[in-house]
Amino acid sequence: MACLKVHGSVFSTAVLRVITCLNEKDLEFELVPINMAAKEHKKEPFISLNPFGQVPAFEDGDLKLFESRAITKYIAYEYKEKVTQLISMDSKKMAILAQWLEVEAHQYDPAASKLTFELVIKPLMLGLTSDGAVVEEYEGKLAKVLDVYEARLAESKYLAGDCFSLADLHHLPSINYLMGTQAKKLFESRPHVSAWCTDILARPAWTKTLAMQKKP
Amino acid sequence: MACLKVHGSVFSTAVLRVITCLNEKDLEFELVPINMAAKEHKKEPFISLNPFGQVPAFEDGDLKLFESRAITKYIAYEYKEKVTQLISMDSKKMAILAQWLEVEAHQYDPAASKLTFELVIKPLMLGLTSDGAVVEEYEGKLAKVLDVYEARLAESKYLAGDCFSLADLHHLPSINYLMGTQAKKLFESRPHVSAWCTDILARPAWTKTLAMQKKP
Ligand SMILES: N[C@@H](CCC(=O)N[C@@H](CS)C(=O)NCC(=O)O)C(=O)O
Ligand SMILES: N[C@@H](CCC(=O)N[C@@H](CS)C(=O)NCC(=O)O)C(=O)O
Repeated sequence: MACLKVHGSVFSTAVLRVITCLNEKDLEFELVPINMAAKEHKKEPFISLNPFGQVPAFEDGDLKLFESRAITKYIAYEYKEKVTQLISMDSKKMAILAQWLEVEAHQYDPAASKLTFELVIKPLMLGLTSDGAVVEEYEGKLAKVLDVYEARLAESKYLAGDCFSLADLHHLPSINYLMGTQAKKLFESRPHVSAWCTDILARPAWTKTLAMQKKP
Repeated sequence: MACLKVHGSVFSTAVLRVITCLNEKDLEFELVPINMAAKEHKKEPFISLNPFGQVPAFEDGDLKLFESRAITKYIAYEYKEKVTQLISMDSKKMAILAQWLEVEAHQYDPAASKLTFELVIKPLMLGLTSDGAVVEEYEGKLAKVLDVYEARLAESKYLAGDCFSLADLHHLPSINYLMGTQAKKLFESRPHVSAWCTDILARPAWTKTLAMQKKP
């Protein structure tokens, strides 16, 4: 039995973030499926793993964690010698990385998550219609964030510097979903953002993550 | 001239978070005031320090950073030997700390920030009326978060463990504002949350931060 466990659904962006981090590190893990339609994430035993009732939850032996970005940070530090280096141990580089991690969490994600909900979850998973006014508002917000990314990626190959890092990785699940919607124009119309998306979506770890969605 | 600089207004919660971290470390810094009413945060020279046009921005010599939580993490690591230890270098303890830092950012702050805006900024700084329905909705959200905190603080003196850490510190500015509003009942009605608030609000570093609001 694997000592690393991820509890959640492979369609959740937050779960995909953790799985991709594990794949970048080539770590074996057990996926414990949580049936969200049956509200398993709001009941025991899951709720003891995350009192906020959200996927993912994670276990590494005795250590139990929730919040996807805390889990990926733990994996990146604990297994820092393995395969892809996702963080830097130099304090100034770590500070720049921390800044772009916060930008993903506080600037990019609020807009991207709302659009993923309106353009993917509502029509494809809940059988509901997207709200056009909400989509327009949040496309406007995401466009402003991506303008900053375009300028940054014109001078730096990846968000935190020359190398792929956790800051880029955290974007993958929602970029992948949004690329299947009308919001893809926001990424494709900005040349450096577009090249960055193509690059990070082509990573073998991400391909391996996506393959898990196709398993029965 | 101080080599540490904080650009921003001493009434901004995000700026207060950084200043409090510097005070916990007993570090000298220069505050470069940004007149938000005059929209200085949306213009040069500020916009070159933070392309998102939000305070704070920070400088430590050549290093320029934005995003308050990236700045506090940098200060906590770079000056880890100084005065209060705000982080742990043990990987499991660091993981638990990272989890509670994410909880503050993704669970607590969205509700607390919205309430601070409705109950403090709108009536006291913008001369507008609070929206009762919004207040009710977000008080409900904050109450659920504080239920989780109450359970956590019943078993652990501080959020990340036995010692005060960056995870507790990040809450101080909004707790302080909300304690002056009707939302204080949410904190005071939960005994462990209430004791935790009293404890962290009494820290000398926080008193020193508040004193800066009173300077002419
Ligand atoms: N900040 C959390 C967010 C987790 C989250 O929002 N998970 C969603 C699925 S992507 C969920 O469980 N939603 C159900 C709910 O919030 O009730 C994290 O990054 O882990
Ligand atoms: N995630 C940012 C948020 C900063 C933020 O929201 N700052 C507010 C003041 S507390 C601001 O500059 N607001 C003006 C604006 O957003 O235009 C951080 O933590 O630094």
